[in-house]
Amino acid sequence: MEHGTEAITRLFLQLGVILFAAKLAGEICERYLKVPSVLGELTAGIIIGPFALGGLDIPGLGSLFEHVESATAQGGFSIPVSDSLWSIAQVGSIILLFTAGLETDLRQFLRYAGPAAVVATGGVILPFVLGVAVTLALGFADSPSDPQALFIGAISTATSIGISVRVLGDLRRLDTPEGVTIIAAAVLDDVIGIIILTVVIGISVTSEFSASSVSLVALKTLGFWVALTGAGILLSKRISNILSSFQVSGATVALALGLAFFSGALAETFGLAMIIGAFSMGLALSGTELAHRLDGALRGVYAATVPIFFVVMGTLVDVTSLGNVWVFGLALTGVAIIGKVAGSGIPALFAGFNYQGSFRIGIGMLPRGEVALIMAGIGVSQGIIGSDLFSVSIIMTIVTTVLAPLVLSRSFSSTASGARVEELS
Amino acid sequence: MEHGTEAITRLFLQLGVILFAAKLAGEICERYLKVPSVLGELTAGIIIGPFALGGLDIPGLGSLFEHVESATAQGGFSIPVSDSLWSIAQVGSIILLFTAGLETDLRQFLRYAGPAAVVATGGVILPFVLGVAVTLALGFADSPSDPQALFIGAISTATSIGISVRVLGDLRRLDTPEGVTIIAAAVLDDVIGIIILTVVIGISVTSEFSASSVSLVALKTLGFWVALTGAGILLSKRISNILSSFQVSGATVALALGLAFFSGALAETFGLAMIIGAFSMGLALSGTELAHRLDGALRGVYAATVPIFFVVMGTLVDVTSLGNVWVFGLALTGVAIIGKVAGSGIPALFAGFNYQGSFRIGIGMLPRGEVALIMAGIGVSQGIIGSDLFSVSIIMTIVTTVLAPLVLSRSFSSTASGARVEELS
Repeated sequence: MEHGTEAITRLFLQLGVILFAAKLAGEICERYLKVPSVLGELTAGIIIGPFALGGLDIPGLGSLFEHVESATAQGGFSIPVSDSLWSIAQVGSIILLFTAGLETDLRQFLRYAGPAAVVATGGVILPFVLGVAVTLALGFADSPSDPQALFIGAISTATSIGISVRVLGDLRRLDTPEGVTIIAAAVLDDVIGIIILTVVIGISVTSEFSASSVSLVALKTLGFWVALTGAGILLSKRISNILSSFQVSGATVALALGLAFFSGALAETFGLAMIIGAFSMGLALSGTELAHRLDGALRGVYAATVPIFFVVMGTLVDVTSLGNVWVFGLALTGVAIIGKVAGSGIPALFAGFNYQGSFRIGIGMLPRGEVALIMAGIGVSQGIIGSDLFSVSIIMTIVTTVLAPLVLSRSFSSTASGARVEELS
Repeated sequence: MEHGTEAITRLFLQLGVILFAAKLAGEICERYLKVPSVLGELTAGIIIGPFALGGLDIPGLGSLFEHVESATAQGGFSIPVSDSLWSIAQVGSIILLFTAGLETDLRQFLRYAGPAAVVATGGVILPFVLGVAVTLALGFADSPSDPQALFIGAISTATSIGISVRVLGDLRRLDTPEGVTIIAAAVLDDVIGIIILTVVIGISVTSEFSASSVSLVALKTLGFWVALTGAGILLSKRISNILSSFQVSGATVALALGLAFFSGALAETFGLAMIIGAFSMGLALSGTELAHRLDGALRGVYAATVPIFFVVMGTLVDVTSLGNVWVFGLALTGVAIIGKVAGSGIPALFAGFNYQGSFRIGIGMLPRGEVALIMAGIGVSQGIIGSDLFSVSIIMTIVTTVLAPLVLSRSFSSTASGARVEELS
């Protein structure tokens, strides 16, 4: 325990460097490279991290990052940043997912639930199977029940709501049948993906793989998630009214974030990922007056904390290890692309879309973005995957997240509808 | 180093409890007790802290706070919360002081600089002398150069801008001659107080007390402060333009906070308190277009982090130790009141105010609020003062901060001007 001002000074220096690097890299990405800024933040983290520039000695200051050697309780990969910086990054992930939940339109979600459900299901099953298969094929696991293989499968199922929404918004195609379906499917995919993640974490902790244990974990997960989200939705109006009744300044933001932290801690206590709690609370509150009031106020909190999360995720990447796993990285990237384009696109053909619409949907589900990063971070911090598989996941995430906006914008350059009009309107 | 999800779960639970306790207590204070909400946050911290409710075992969970036993590098008082929570609280103090700097009107500050300078000087010297004297008189120090006595003197000089501005704003008396003078003097007092604090910290680190060492520290402090603030003011337009030219979302908030963190770290590197860096950067940017754009966006960040700072400050108070120091606590409170009412009020008489105006100014300078808390927190974390003197400071801070709004609102119930019109207009 080091409470001295020296540790705080170093933390502030890190936070300053992180925020500047994040926005500089984000600006370059969005403005000049025309790729999502999140990629810049991730890259900035890799560059300034303890494995690259941040590990170099600055005369009189030492290195920017401490090279923390000891680490996680469960052993395995060591997290190379301090407790404090890691905690602040985790706060960022809670705010990211809470905001994502708040921005999800429950009603629209339900309206396109049918097509979205088949798109999401296909977009989960195929990438999962292919992810496990490629891990086995390249000798990183001995059996399909190996936690490492299951975890790579789980990461492959991810879809980034943030990136999909952002890209579709920039293209002004959010309100197309494909657009709404992509978003609803991405939400569903998030929920299913987090359940898969929890199942995989549960299996790797109990070291068992049986249909009954999977059903039990799935039931517990689904039960808790349905109970939390259901209670949240039922109480959302009351929560909104209570929180809005506070007159003291800043109460709405502080209390809403308090709820997000509680939900995260509660989810974890029930054996779920923390982010599912924050997301569910956000989803439950999404239709309320409170969500509307939070919109502007949370933007500053988001801007201040979310980039820290992505940059810190980048700092976890050991660039020297990327070279050793490029074969696996490219193989996983390949199956991750096939898994979404075919896995989500083919079911879309049967749910009322034509070939063009189905391709758009497949590409829209492609970016793994922050969801895969959060999953990979959890896997690392729980000691389920090591730095090699973490790097593999990062390669796959970077490639799919760069590729999707490029292909999506081209696929939408034609104004032709992707829906078979007789079925969807 | 414990990176496990258990530590993060506990942190999120703490953050949830802290935010709820802060806003509940703040609401009770403002709405029903008609006292500033900051008092509620502080009290909430005392109640939920590791020395009170937060130390009790919850079945199946353990205690909310970890009872961290090991602590500060310099020995002395141990900070009873985790690295991560302490760091997030320090982020809150940086944001509090950065925002205070941003909200300070440089031009108004300069216009009332004359009266404010004498008010601030008197309001620093008398409380400092009385604070040192009472520490000596009650046997907590052997000589006037004892760091403990100097530190209590330094804490006694504090004036809370936040509380003064808030109370005057609620009374709609911000634009009176007394109002502007109080604010400008409180700003000056902050700067002088921080220099005193830095001098005291400098002395307690080098264990020397000589006129030349004091001059050297003062010169270094003033020199760095003038250089940082001067450079900030000179470059403020350019900084504002550069930061505003970023197109990527959230860049303004993230980069401005990055600057605040850098300034804090830079100030610390130069031997100054971190908060002086954040405040100076805010002050330098206060006149710019950037400050205007930050106003709304920082409100959410402020709401999310500043209450955490005050509650965590409260958690540092060992309630069982308050009973042992109540004599010193009341004595310090008494001289702290006399020190400001006479020390700031009498010079005001000579600077163009009548008796009523001078009394209002003296009372307006009374609340120690967050500034004294920050100083006390620094003293504790640097091992200069122990838990006994920290508790004494808290008693003094609580009493002066409660008393000021009550007396100030009564003294302003008459609409008569407090200025001798022939001199001030």
